[in-house]
This record gives sequence, C-alpha cells and structure tokens, in this order.
Amino acid sequence: MRITLIGAGNLATNLAFALQEAGHEIVQIYSRTTVSAQELAAKVNIQAFTSQISAISNDSDVYIVSISDKALAEIAPQLVAGRQQALWLHTAGSMPMDTLPTTRRGVLYPMQTFSKQKRVSFRAIPIFIESAETADLEVLRQLASSLSDSVYELSSADRKYLHLAAVFCCNFANHCSTLAAHLLEKHGIPFSVMLPLIDETSQKLHSLPPAKAQTGPAVRGDQNVMNEHLNTLHADREPHLAQLYQLLSQSIQDFQHIPLKEQN
Amino acid sequence: MRITLIGAGNLATNLAFALQEAGHEIVQIYSRTTVSAQELAAKVNIQAFTSQISAISNDSDVYIVSISDKALAEIAPQLVAGRQQALWLHTAGSMPMDTLPTTRRGVLYPMQTFSKQKRVSFRAIPIFIESAETADLEVLRQLASSLSDSVYELSSADRKYLHLAAVFCCNFANHCSTLAAHLLEKHGIPFSVMLPLIDETSQKLHSLPPAKAQTGPAVRGDQNVMNEHLNTLHADREPHLAQLYQLLSQSIQDFQHIPLKEQN
Repeated sequence: MRITLIGAGNLATNLAFALQEAGHEIVQIYSRTTVSAQELAAKVNIQAFTSQISAISNDSDVYIVSISDKALAEIAPQLVAGRQQALWLHTAGSMPMDTLPTTRRGVLYPMQTFSKQKRVSFRAIPIFIESAETADLEVLRQLASSLSDSVYELSSADRKYLHLAAVFCCNFANHCSTLAAHLLEKHGIPFSVMLPLIDETSQKLHSLPPAKAQTGPAVRGDQNVMNEHLNTLHADREPHLAQLYQLLSQSIQDFQHIPLKEQN
Repeated sequence: MRITLIGAGNLATNLAFALQEAGHEIVQIYSRTTVSAQELAAKVNIQAFTSQISAISNDSDVYIVSISDKALAEIAPQLVAGRQQALWLHTAGSMPMDTLPTTRRGVLYPMQTFSKQKRVSFRAIPIFIESAETADLEVLRQLASSLSDSVYELSSADRKYLHLAAVFCCNFANHCSTLAAHLLEKHGIPFSVMLPLIDETSQKLHSLPPAKAQTGPAVRGDQNVMNEHLNTLHADREPHLAQLYQLLSQSIQDFQHIPLKEQN
C-alpha cells in the first residue's frame, strides 16, 4: 500500500520501519517540525517530507496519523480536508475513531511502549483495529496483519479500557522502578541488581494471573515489615513515597480478600 | 555442606531444590505445620522432617531459616538454643542480621519473587550476604556462590533499602497488573493481550534507566488524556483506582522534572 505517515515521534519511527519491512511504500512523512520529518525520512531512506499541512501529498491509499493525542484533536480537520478519498487511520489508544472527521476512517492501535532509542519487533505486538466502513475493515486487517501476528478488532468504547489498563501495566509499573532506582541511588546501590527480579515479575504473568503472582509484605499481611518500611521512608525524607507505599499496600490487601468476580 | 532447612514456604521450596542441585545435603526440614514439612521433604526426596523445634537435629553445619519475618523474630531464640556451634543464616530481606541471637550468624538473601507453583533458576538470582564473624563470611560466600553467579556483600542497614526498592519494583509493579486485569475483566478483554507490553516494559530497563524508559500520558503532560482516564474510572465506580491513577501520574511528572541527583 502507498502510505503517508503523519508524525515522526516514538511510535511513528517504529511504525515506519515496520511498514517498510512489510513491503509498503511510505510516500511521504509529515511532522510539525521540519527537522523531525527530515530525520525520520533519512532513517527510512525516503526523499519526501514536509512540515506544511498544505504540502501533504494527495495520492496515498492510506494516511496513518501518529501524533500526540492533543495535536490529533487539533489538526485532524485540516489533515483530512481535500484528501477524503483515502483511508485515514490514527494510532492513539486513548482517542475515539471519530476524532478523524472523514467517512473512510479507522484506528490501528499497536499496544506497546515505544522509545526512539530502542527498536521493537512489531510481529509480537498486539494491534487493535476499528473502522467506520465495512469495506475498509478488510484493508485495515490486511495492513495490520502485514505488521503483526496478533490483530484484534475492538471498538472505541472498549479500547478506552484497554488503554487505561496499559497505563497501569506499563507506565505505572515502570514508575515503580523509577521510585526504586531513586531509593537505591541515594544509598549507593546500582539499579542493575534489580533486573533479575523485574524480569521474573513480568515472566510470572505468563503462567499466573497477577493477583496469584503477588508476593511481598502486603499480601502476607506482614504489618511489622510494612511499618518498618514506612518508618524508613519517613526517616529518609520521602513522605511522597511513603504515601504511595501505604496506598498500594492497602490496595494489594483489598484485592486479595475480594474475589475478582465479586468486586463491582 | 550439611544443611537443616527451617521453613517450607515459597522461598524454602525453591532454595531446597537449588541446594540439592549444588550438591549440598539437606539433613532435615522443619516447618510449624507437619504437612508442609512432609510435602517439601517428599519433593526433595529426604526422610527427615519435623514440626517440633525440640526435634530439630543438632548436627548440621548450617541452619537456614526461611520463614515469615514475623515468625523469625518470634522463634529465633528457641531455634538457636543448644545449636550454637553451627552457622545460622536467615533469608529475609527486611530483617537485620541480629534477629538471630547467636554468635555465628549471617544473612543469605536471594532477591527474587518466589511462588511454589513456579520453579526459578537460582543461578541468575542476586544473593546478598552478610555475616557477623569474618571466618563465617568465607563459608557463606562459598555457599552463596554454589547457588548463584551474582553474590554481593551488603550490610543490614543497606539491605533495608534494597528490600524496600524490591517491594516497589516487584510487588507494586505486579499490583499495577492486578488493577489492569480487574479493569479488563470487567469489560471482557483477556489479560493475555497485555503480556507483550509487560515484557517490553521490563526488557527496556536492560538498556534504559527507568526514568528515561517512561512513556504514557503523564510523562507527555497530556492532561486531556489523564482527565479522560480519571472520568472513565469514576464513571466505572473505581474511585480507589482513580486515586492511585492521580497520585502515580503526579509522581511521574514530579520525577521527570527533577534530575535524580538533585532530588534530596
């Protein structure tokens, strides 16, 4: 397919490589910032890039919009204007499909954490798709399947919960490591000693549901250890970490005693 | 070495297998509950087990105490009484070495998340050791090195921070997945779609420090998405998850703007 890529951020960068590997032609790259557009164009070895919406090509089959959620809402009308014969897709987990004000619209949401510094293989990434027109769903499924082995159809309403769950599993879990790294750094212990523990924590979830995989003082009800940890955090002048410690421990205990099915 | 194992829980179970694989002789297994002692003894194919402290053998070189932190503090005096010629070790990250009221004492803390249902390989697990007597440190180092390739000496004072960091990296990160699983279950989405994201989140930490690996709406300052998520959680009658969402997002933003070195 002939594809124009709108955006040059973390996801757009990883997507550009994956599209090329799957044999698609990237017609042009747009970014608000010329240098970003130019850099990504250079990386995937194409000539055409622009930072002017008016200069975006009119002859692509598919336009994939992979920009910040805020920018997406703002510039979507200008993007699609005059290019409504093509299929327009956005890649935002949190935005409904109708953010794109055109008939042939859809969503291609690859659920992964992308950093420019680290290339990821798209084949194992679950991609969630949705389209307004039945005819386009086939095109979209074909496109998604050319990138990944795990393609699911999901409505905007359900994708909202999926994206929220991803924030907990990925963004918040990663931040727990940032807090740990902060404590370790203060006391001269290298963060790298944590890696086997972090790896096993995620590996366990392949064979146990997270509530069953839970270990540590909170799930054991070990109040002595929890009090000692809270005292340590306060003595270390980390009231903010102490607050998170207390709330997360309480939440672990709440979730342990109420079977999931009855939790509503 | 001839070793008596005090405890039959998650860690004791994994340790028993690792000790045998390293060629040590497990002389006896003690657990408060006869059935737990018997089960673990059967698993590692030895005859001697007991639930009576008075029946614990007197002729081991090393006693490894791997029981709950609370039980450790309570029964340590009875355990060591009359067996003070041997080296006594405990495996608790959160307890100081002097919880063991005897001269030849030390700590062997394998930092990992252990579940009975899942065997882990000890060789990649960092083990943190400490001993009261210099002569015993060599014995302890030899024992730890027979189990793992990563052995570090660490004082009780520093181990306190290490253990606290482990609670954040492992226990709290895992609980973030429990919260995600809860949301997904309510909306009929299988948790397994999260696994590639969870795997990549931990994998990234092998090449990026956690603060640099951070992605998501909070670190992007995407207030619209965060508000939408909070509204969704409230509408879904999850005020508790909304509170955690808000605090963790705030914490992500706080940590992004203050370089680690200046944070005290």
